Parts: sequence; C-alpha cells; structure tokens
Amino acid sequence: MNTFGKNLTLTTFGESHGPAMGGIIDGFPSGYKIDFDKLLAEIAKRRPGQSALVTARKETDKPEFLSGISPDGITLGTPIGFIVRNADHHSSDYDEMAKAFRPNHADYTYIQRYGIRDHRGGGRQSARETVNWVVAGALALQWLETKGITIESVLSQVGPVTAGDIFDGLMTEPEKPFNLSVNPDLQLAMEEFIKETKKKGDSVGGKVSCVISGIPAGIGEPVADKLHSRLAAAMMSINAAKGFEYGIGFRGASAMGSDTADTFLPASSLSELKTATNYSGGIQGGISNGMPVFFSVAFKPTPTLMQPLKTVDTEGKEMVLNPAGRHDPCVAVRAVPVVKALAALVIADFMV
Amino acid sequence: MNTFGKNLTLTTFGESHGPAMGGIIDGFPSGYKIDFDKLLAEIAKRRPGQSALVTARKETDKPEFLSGISPDGITLGTPIGFIVRNADHHSSDYDEMAKAFRPNHADYTYIQRYGIRDHRGGGRQSARETVNWVVAGALALQWLETKGITIESVLSQVGPVTAGDIFDGLMTEPEKPFNLSVNPDLQLAMEEFIKETKKKGDSVGGKVSCVISGIPAGIGEPVADKLHSRLAAAMMSINAAKGFEYGIGFRGASAMGSDTADTFLPASSLSELKTATNYSGGIQGGISNGMPVFFSVAFKPTPTLMQPLKTVDTEGKEMVLNPAGRHDPCVAVRAVPVVKALAALVIADFMV
Amino acid sequence: MNTFGKNLTLTTFGESHGPAMGGIIDGFPSGYKIDFDKLLAEIAKRRPGQSALVTARKETDKPEFLSGISPDGITLGTPIGFIVRNADHHSSDYDEMAKAFRPNHADYTYIQRYGIRDHRGGGRQSARETVNWVVAGALALQWLETKGITIESVLSQVGPVTAGDIFDGLMTEPEKPFNLSVNPDLQLAMEEFIKETKKKGDSVGGKVSCVISGIPAGIGEPVADKLHSRLAAAMMSINAAKGFEYGIGFRGASAMGSDTADTFLPASSLSELKTATNYSGGIQGGISNGMPVFFSVAFKPTPTLMQPLKTVDTEGKEMVLNPAGRHDPCVAVRAVPVVKALAALVIADFMV
Amino acid sequence: MNTFGKNLTLTTFGESHGPAMGGIIDGFPSGYKIDFDKLLAEIAKRRPGQSALVTARKETDKPEFLSGISPDGITLGTPIGFIVRNADHHSSDYDEMAKAFRPNHADYTYIQRYGIRDHRGGGRQSARETVNWVVAGALALQWLETKGITIESVLSQVGPVTAGDIFDGLMTEPEKPFNLSVNPDLQLAMEEFIKETKKKGDSVGGKVSCVISGIPAGIGEPVADKLHSRLAAAMMSINAAKGFEYGIGFRGASAMGSDTADTFLPASSLSELKTATNYSGGIQGGISNGMPVFFSVAFKPTPTLMQPLKTVDTEGKEMVLNPAGRHDPCVAVRAVPVVKALAALVIADFMV
Repeated sequence: MNTFGKNLTLTTFGESHGPAMGGIIDGFPSGYKIDFDKLLAEIAKRRPGQSALVTARKETDKPEFLSGISPDGITLGTPIGFIVRNADHHSSDYDEMAKAFRPNHADYTYIQRYGIRDHRGGGRQSARETVNWVVAGALALQWLETKGITIESVLSQVGPVTAGDIFDGLMTEPEKPFNLSVNPDLQLAMEEFIKETKKKGDSVGGKVSCVISGIPAGIGEPVADKLHSRLAAAMMSINAAKGFEYGIGFRGASAMGSDTADTFLPASSLSELKTATNYSGGIQGGISNGMPVFFSVAFKPTPTLMQPLKTVDTEGKEMVLNPAGRHDPCVAVRAVPVVKALAALVIADFMV
Repeated sequence: MNTFGKNLTLTTFGESHGPAMGGIIDGFPSGYKIDFDKLLAEIAKRRPGQSALVTARKETDKPEFLSGISPDGITLGTPIGFIVRNADHHSSDYDEMAKAFRPNHADYTYIQRYGIRDHRGGGRQSARETVNWVVAGALALQWLETKGITIESVLSQVGPVTAGDIFDGLMTEPEKPFNLSVNPDLQLAMEEFIKETKKKGDSVGGKVSCVISGIPAGIGEPVADKLHSRLAAAMMSINAAKGFEYGIGFRGASAMGSDTADTFLPASSLSELKTATNYSGGIQGGISNGMPVFFSVAFKPTPTLMQPLKTVDTEGKEMVLNPAGRHDPCVAVRAVPVVKALAALVIADFMV
Repeated sequence: MNTFGKNLTLTTFGESHGPAMGGIIDGFPSGYKIDFDKLLAEIAKRRPGQSALVTARKETDKPEFLSGISPDGITLGTPIGFIVRNADHHSSDYDEMAKAFRPNHADYTYIQRYGIRDHRGGGRQSARETVNWVVAGALALQWLETKGITIESVLSQVGPVTAGDIFDGLMTEPEKPFNLSVNPDLQLAMEEFIKETKKKGDSVGGKVSCVISGIPAGIGEPVADKLHSRLAAAMMSINAAKGFEYGIGFRGASAMGSDTADTFLPASSLSELKTATNYSGGIQGGISNGMPVFFSVAFKPTPTLMQPLKTVDTEGKEMVLNPAGRHDPCVAVRAVPVVKALAALVIADFMV
Repeated sequence: MNTFGKNLTLTTFGESHGPAMGGIIDGFPSGYKIDFDKLLAEIAKRRPGQSALVTARKETDKPEFLSGISPDGITLGTPIGFIVRNADHHSSDYDEMAKAFRPNHADYTYIQRYGIRDHRGGGRQSARETVNWVVAGALALQWLETKGITIESVLSQVGPVTAGDIFDGLMTEPEKPFNLSVNPDLQLAMEEFIKETKKKGDSVGGKVSCVISGIPAGIGEPVADKLHSRLAAAMMSINAAKGFEYGIGFRGASAMGSDTADTFLPASSLSELKTATNYSGGIQGGISNGMPVFFSVAFKPTPTLMQPLKTVDTEGKEMVLNPAGRHDPCVAVRAVPVVKALAALVIADFMV
C-alpha cells in the first residue's frame, strides 16, 4: 500500500508523468506555526536540475497545501492534503519503453503484480514519488525542531570514493562535539567521480549517512516496532536502497563483546544518563536511550544507463533499448534529503 | 506494539521468566494439514542447550496449540492460539539485576518507556520471545512449501571467521544450482572461535545469511510495503541485529551500473522470464521478479559477558555487576532459525 | 484519523471553506475501465442546490483525478488521488461563528480535541467531506457492478412521514422481486414536509434505507470485522447519524425465535442455498449468506436552524447566534447517496 | 480478523469446544495495580449457569494471566496474555450438527468463507468468545475508574416487556442525578417472560442499554473513527446484535431541530461547559463533549430453539435437526456485561 506510519501517517499518490504527485499527512499535531520559506528551502534540496550531479529535469516542486493549515499558517490537527504538479513532461522520451522491460527497473514486476503499468518515466516506481516524502518530512522536521530534535544527512560514499567510518567519533567518543560532514577534498572527489561517470554514460552506487540528535530516551517499541526496525523499513523504501545499518552495523559481526559494551556513566539524574561509548547507535532493545541515533543506507547504481542496453520486450523477445529521458548518474545524491525526510517522519510518528 | 504482519498476523506476549510465552496467528489459510513432527523439529532448532555453542538453559519448547486447528490437524482459518510454557526459572540468578542497568541491554530504555520493568532475565526484551516467532514461522514454512517456496538460513560469519561473499554465485551465475552452505572446515573454525570466546567469558558478533527460493514474481508492494522493506523491518526486530542488506547490498555503494545491470534473458513466456545476473536479489521496485531472494543480517556481540562489568544502578550511581544467568557467547547462532522463521512470516503475509 | 477501510482504503482531507477537498483511494483493482459520465452522474446526486429540498450552495463537484488511472481511463492498481475544488466561499457568512459554540455542532468538541478549529462553515466537520466519500464510492460501485453487485438507497422517513417497515417484503418473502422505493404520494408528502420545515426556519430528522443485492456468500469476518459491524461503523460516520439497524433490527428485540428462524431451503448446490425468510438481513455470524443485505440509518435534525439561537461564546459566556450560511432543512436527503457510497466502499474493501 | 482496537488492542482466539479461549491485550498502560478479586467478580457476571435465565453450561471462567503483569499485580506495559480453559465439553451433543446447517447460525457462512468449520458448539461463532472480551474489558474498566470513568449496562427489554425510553431523563434533564436501572417489577416481568419462553423451548429478543459517565470532553476522532462509530462497530460484534442507537437514536428521525438543540449553558471555565439537554448522547462531531454517553443495542432471539427444526444438511438436502446442547432462551441477558466490557475497551483505546 501507499501509507507510511501509524499515528502520524503519510499516504501518497502520483505517477511521474501524470498531472500531479501528492499526499495526505494525518495526525500532525495542531497549533504549530509553519515556516513556509524554510519549508520550501528544505524541499528544494531534493530538486533535480540544480547541479551537474543530478538529472536535468526541471521541476519547480512547490507544493500546494489544500487543507489542515489555517490561512495564517497554523496547523489545525486535521489532515494536511497537498499536491505537487508535474511540470515537465516529455512523454515521447519514453515511447520506446512501452515495449521494453528495462533491466533492474520494476517494469516487469509491475506487470506481474498489476497486469498493467504506466511506462512513462517509470510511473509510480519513479524517484519522483520522493517529492511527496520530502514535503511531508519537511513539515515533520519543523515540528521535531520545536522538541529539540535535529536530523542531518550526508553523502558518505560514491563508488570507490568513501568517507570511511564516518561515525567512528560518535561511537568511541560520543561526549565530543560531532559534526556530520565530509571534508571538502573528499566532497570534490565525489563530484569529480560522478561527472566522470556521467560522461561515460554510466552510473555509480553510493552511501548516505544520517544522524538524529536530541531524541529523548524512551522512544520506540520493544518488539514489533523497534525504532531501528521502523527506520530500516523506511530507508529500504527509497529507490535503489540495498542495505541499512545502524550503530556499529555490519562491523558488529566481527566485533567482540568486551570491546563494544556501552558502559553507562554515573549521573545524578536518570534522564541525564549517558553511555561512555555509543556502539548501540542510541537504541537499546528497540527504544532510544537518549544518545544520538545514526545509520547508513547503501544505494546501488541507478539502473538506467545512457548506453544501448540489451533487454527483452514485453513479449519476452530480445531487443536493444536505446537510452532516453534524463537520468541520474548517482541516485544516492538525491537520496540525501530523502533519507532525512523519512527519518523525520519515523521519529515524529513515534512522538506524536 | 507486538503484532507482526498485516494479513497474516502474529501477535505475541511473554516475559522470559513469567509462566509462558505465546501468540496468536491470525489469517492463516484454512484447510491445510499440519505435520506436527516436522513442526517440532523446526522449533527444536532454536532451542538452547543443544550444544556447547549456545546457552545452557533447558527448555522443552513444545507449543500447546489452543485453537484454529481441528483435532485431526487441519487449519480452520480461525486464529491459532498457542502457548509455550517457560520451564526453567532461576529468578534468583537475576536478583542483582533488579538494581542495575546492564550495558547494551534495554533495562534503562524500558524504565524510560514504561516506568517499570521485569528485570528477571530481561523480561520481554529476552531472546526467549523468539520462540513465539519460530513457532509461527514453522507453521508458515509448511504452508509456503505447499506453494513451492523454500527458505534456508545459515551462519555465515562469527567474528573474524567469515564465509565471505556467500551469495556471489547467486548473483553472477544464478542459472547454476546453488546450495546455501558453509564448508565444514569453516564451520568448525566458527565453532572453535565461539568455544574460545566462551572460555574467556567474552562474546562475539556474527552474520546470518538467508535465501528464499521458489517465490513467484509479483509479490510485494511498490511503495510503502516493499518486499525488502518488510524483510528488513522483520530482521531488525531480532535482538542484537545491527544491519540488513539484500542482493548486492553494501557492495552496491561501490559498484558501477554497467557491471550490475540484471539483463533479462529472452523467454517464450513472461512468467518464465529470468535475469542473466541477480544483483537485484530477486526484487525490483519492491516486488519479487521470480529470481531467488537473498539477504544477510549482522548481529553485534551479545551484551552480557561472563566478566564483572562496570555500570550504574537504577539511581544512576556507579556499580559493578557480577555476571549471573546463562548466556550466549554468540547470539547469531540462535538467530539462524529465527531469521528463517521471520522470512517465512513476511512472505506468507504477502501471499495469503 | 481519516482513513476508511483496510484493503481498499480511502484517506481524505479538506475543510469546507479551504481550497479543496480530496482523497486517496488505495488498493483499487487494476485493469478496470472507468465510465466517467456515469461517475459524474452518481456524484451529482449528492450535490446541493439541486432542488428546494437542500441547501442552496452551488458546487460543481467535478473531481480532478490526479493518478492511478491511465489516460484512456483504465485503473492502474496504483493509488487514485483526486481533489474537488471548493468553489463557493462566503466566509464572511461565518464570521460570527468564530466566537460561538453552536449547539449540536462540533465547535466545542474540536476545541477540546485540537485546541484550535477552522470555524468557517464547520471546517472539517462539514458535510462537505461527504463529497470525498461519494467520489470514492462511485468508483467502488462501478467495480462492484462488474461483480454483479448493486446497491440502492432511499429516503424512507422524514419526521412524521414514514415509509414504515420498508423491508417487510424482503424479510418475509425474499423470493419475490423487490424494488426499493417509496410510493410517489409518500415521496411528495416528504417533500412537502421538508418545504414546510424550511419555511419555518426549522429542521427535521429522517431515515435512509439501503439494500445490497448480488453479494456472494462468504464475505465478512466472523469476529472483529463482521460485515454488519463495518457497515454500522461506516454509516455512523455520516454527520447526524444516530442509529443503525440491519435485518430485523430493533424489532428483533421484541420478536420470538420461533417466528424469525431463517430456514434454509433445499438446494442442489451449496452455492445456490437460500433461506425461506431473511430476518438475518443476509448476514449470519458476520459473514454474508448470499441473500440481500439491507439496513437503515436514522438521522437527527440538522443542528443549524435559521432562527436566532441561544448558546455560549468561546469563553463560555451566554450569547445569541444569528443564523448565517445556507443549510439543509433535512440532512437525511443528502445522506441518500452517501449511504450508498459508503456501503459500496465497505463491500469492495472486503472483496478486493 | 480477530483484533479489536488500535492503540489498546485485544486480539483473541478460541473455539468453544477446543481446549481454551484466550487473548492478548496490547498497549495497556504500565504501572497500574490490578485488583484481581474485583476482576473475577466482573468476569463472573457473564458466566452462564448462574440463574434460571441463562444456559446451564458450567464454566469456571477463571482467566490465567501469562504475561504483562508483575508477580505483585502491577501492569508492565508489555502485552497481557491470558487464557481461559474450556472446562465443560459435551461434544457428543453436537454430533448431529456436523451434518446440518442450523438456521440463523453461521454454519453455512463459515463453510462459504473457510471451506471448513468446527461444528462443535458453534466453534468460533459461539458466544463463548465473549469471555475473552469480558476479561479484557474488566481490566480496561479498572483503568478507566482511575480516570473517573464508570460504565453501567442494563437489560432494558425482553420481547414485549420493555423499560421504554430509559434514557429520557438523561436527555431532557441531564443535570439531575441519573441511575441506570429497571424497576424491580419490570425486572421480575422480564425474568418471568424468559422462564415462560424457556418452558416453551422458544427464545426471545431483547435490548441492552448502557451509560458511560465521567468521560472527559475531547475523546474521539472527527471523521473515520468517530467515538459512536467505534462504539457501534464494537456492539455489532456481539452475537445476535441487530441494531445500535445512541443519544436520541431512531427517535431522531421523527424529531424537529427546534426541539432537540442541545443548548450550551454558560460556564466560567470551558472545561466545565455543559448542555441544557443531551439529545446528542454526549458526542458531537464524533468527539465527546463531557456529557454522559449513552446507547442501546438490540438483540434478536437466539437462533437455537429446543424444538425440532427443519433445515438442510451440508449437501443442501432437507433434514430435521433435533435440538441438543444447552442454550439461552434470551441472549440479551448474557450480553449485559459484554456490552459494558466492549464499551470499556473502546473508551480505553481512545484514551491510552
């Protein structure tokens, strides 16, 4: 289905080449003043066409809010409906695709699931859907900020160019100030690699890392709705996501218990309790412990290449698909604000 | 909350040192004959006390089915209620724990969430809960087998001893027969490492890998309930799980699109369509494509060590916790059947 | 929350005096051709301003479908997003209401629930919301018709003017053809009564009756989601609904078992089994038995009168509210297509 | 499915002639002391075999709590699992029923839904299921009492013997003290009528009325989960329920708006706001307004008569079914505590 969340829900719709994307945010707390300038700035971060790094589609992506917010910008507690028009249709770019099953795309699986598909630009499987998530996430972020919670995300790997163990400081010395960032040289190297990749008509994978700070202890459910379980499910919803890890992550498989116990530090008040290290990633037994929550998401290379591609047509016969449309050499770039938005929705869902 | 699934649901209860664990399976298809011997054999796989590798707690773990199955073993379509008595209580082992917040355990987070906790053996946060999942999963496995679906899981890493890229064959040459197994020497090395770890009173992380074969194309939802999203959420529910990856996984972050496109092979019938490679892990756009689905789950070392441990008491004051109870040197060992059971529940939930 | 249904869901938004109403229909079956002319005709039935009987607000109520339907009118299986613009704003009519809690309205309860409300025209509590339900219901009706299911609803009581036991024939002689209608004289009497009521600036209650024909046996859940339980919940969602009964209804409280047993008639095939009488209203144990399902819904008089009304202001002080806006003398009139639409959504939700 | 509620959920299982009934209460607030004596007294109210009025089945109905409550009776916030053994099996009473579809029972509909059924005593369709609801409801009642909320229910009609408009005082003069009771003479007349009915081997319908006092303003959702919508759904889940009305109910269909406006009385504080009359039944726009909530539920006569009954067998052929088992002459009697229990679960679900 197309609903995220339980108490704060986001239900979405939209095919990339239909008239509009949109969604309904239900359960948003009442009485909060929305800062629309800030909101648009946040939404703009995912907009393609901003730099050489991402696809050239021009989208204005200004959401039209249709309900749930009073004329003076105060949330009413009622569902917030919004739409985002799809401005830039070049459906003819996609004509050949009507007859093809593109490799690594959901063309074939949609046919198997629904018996029909909208082939134009990927229809509902397009990354265009993430604009809905970013709109809703931007609202959630504003609400979370009133609770002292901030979320940052960063591109931490592009193919062979990697920021390495970007969370090392957070795990081993969590008491020290931490700034989620990649040094400028590395950032440049990533951009260079993406440009090279684009020139070759190829694509490359990547990784996005995210830190949630200021989350109070006690958030999450202990069994079926663990905080990290919900984060994992949300992140794996992003197109091309192939892996999720939090805290020590996959390195935990090779670690010893004696090296990774997050010892509690004595405190005068229980609510100020901290741990000396944070291999747990701020979550113990599915519930936040008040330390920063952090995780990474791996993305495979975007399946659309700007090279002729051998595949089959919708009758199973061999064909060569000539590239068309405009696509991302590295989908992880555009996933950066999406990871942040979904993290905001998950946390807000637990807190409303 | 304590419910897994949407159409085939499992709702569970139970504290490890209370009278019983148990659950209700709702939505199980009617008219299926249950093979109880096979069921008990499957459930027995997770039972501790079987080898030197796992904790010595003796549990008989014979579920008592209370409804939903006719006297002659046929499912009725009505909810299947079951309980598993907790036979082996040594609550006194846990007396000291009433006063302590154990590192990496959910003691502190439970207090922050509920204001109260059952300290005996971890209460609801204990891995004992997984017996409920394995009982339900064993039923689901039997039903899936009637649909031609099989699920295998294996311990693929213990600390430094690793089976490496265990899915390489499945990704690069999926047409070849594949057998999910670790070679006997490696298996022995893993067992040795765990014994050593136990002797030292330490614990070690590990990894479990899983393959689902025979799953038809068209299973999954394209946006909010992607097949891999639901698998990720389920796996991250297992105690000590820190990471999930499927298909090419985290290696996808460093891969190029031109190397990892899963080209479709020509076929005379759409339902027989296969891909030349399977970096996608059998899922495209959140929906199965008929190829095998495979994934791995990373587990951190069990937080309980058999060494004195510095921590704080429930008032935040420093204390030293002496080890008590009987615990696993490598929780990943017992996770092997749990991963399989949860995978079965996820797949069955989509298929009922 | 604002979501109806479980497998076929409708999530809605919209304040009556905001820019638009709208909704998302998720889970609608793929591959069905929508007849848009028929759809608009069905939607038009609830439109006010059609006759003297209902409020004079002019609404065009033409939904704009934004997704889920291909350019040639075929459903895609993806969520169907739609909006219906609110064309006719006279917010100034409602200025006085910002300061008043209207009797029998949800003004006060909204403040208690959300701490804020949109006072213009009732905001989200307005019957305007039912346009969303009718749009979605009209789609569901078209799909149900392809399954041989038809739904009719009729105004069966207006204050003292009542069609009496309109379902008598259906209960005692279900084998006879049945036509859900009120005789023209009675219909005229109802219209007269409403006109009189309007002239006096008063309002009057009413009753809507509904029959679902062609529903196959086996639809519904036996315990928590009984077919009639879901129908009751849906009907009680309609503004001003105060009672729901199905089959023999409240008359069952005074009936004897020996008079009301629905004896099965011998049949050569189980799927053709019929009952000699149908006091059960086509449902036994929460599941349809293949006989017609029928029920009635009682509506209280619309709370807004065109007379000065004593009430309190938002500080609890006495005030007199002068009538403003344009309102229905008998809300049951407009509920007729709404009852039908919600019945369609409930049945379709069980059948998809 | 078999789950009631959203935030405080009850999931149940059990066939009347299987080993046990049972359920899981999830989301119950932590830190509340359970009074088990009071709990058993409440549960005992529904126990059959207590008087001449109800069936002679002897059930001890002592629930065994398996989790979620500490050894000293404090709720832990974790799921409360319980079972109630089925003590009194006379399956042979039901042998003939294996071959019959009883009129007005769910025998035929179960076969159409599941293809199989447990014919012994009605299996899952038996009123035995309500023991699960009463156990959970009794817990909810104790928690609600700590919030100042009390719930009463009473048998207000048995066939021709009726208490009439039992809520008249509550509607017209809500400021006066109200005691939900039927005068002793009328109660005697009801008992007499049931005894007569039983002697004749017949059964009779009835009505149960219920008042919820002390519920604060602001409880409920305005659109899809209206407070009365959820109450209606819950009540219609009770076996043999045919109608639900709240506030003015079906009488509202013949009422005029000028007679039934619930005028607000001036008050110095908004939270003390009261209405002069209470035709609304304490709910406006789906949300409680702080006045008492009251409703009635109609029950048809129990379908099992102690007379030979013409019906068909499971192949559709005519047969005569000889009565067997022990059954209630008036199911409404046993519904009295069930109505109360479900009301408690609905209110608690909104308030946790």
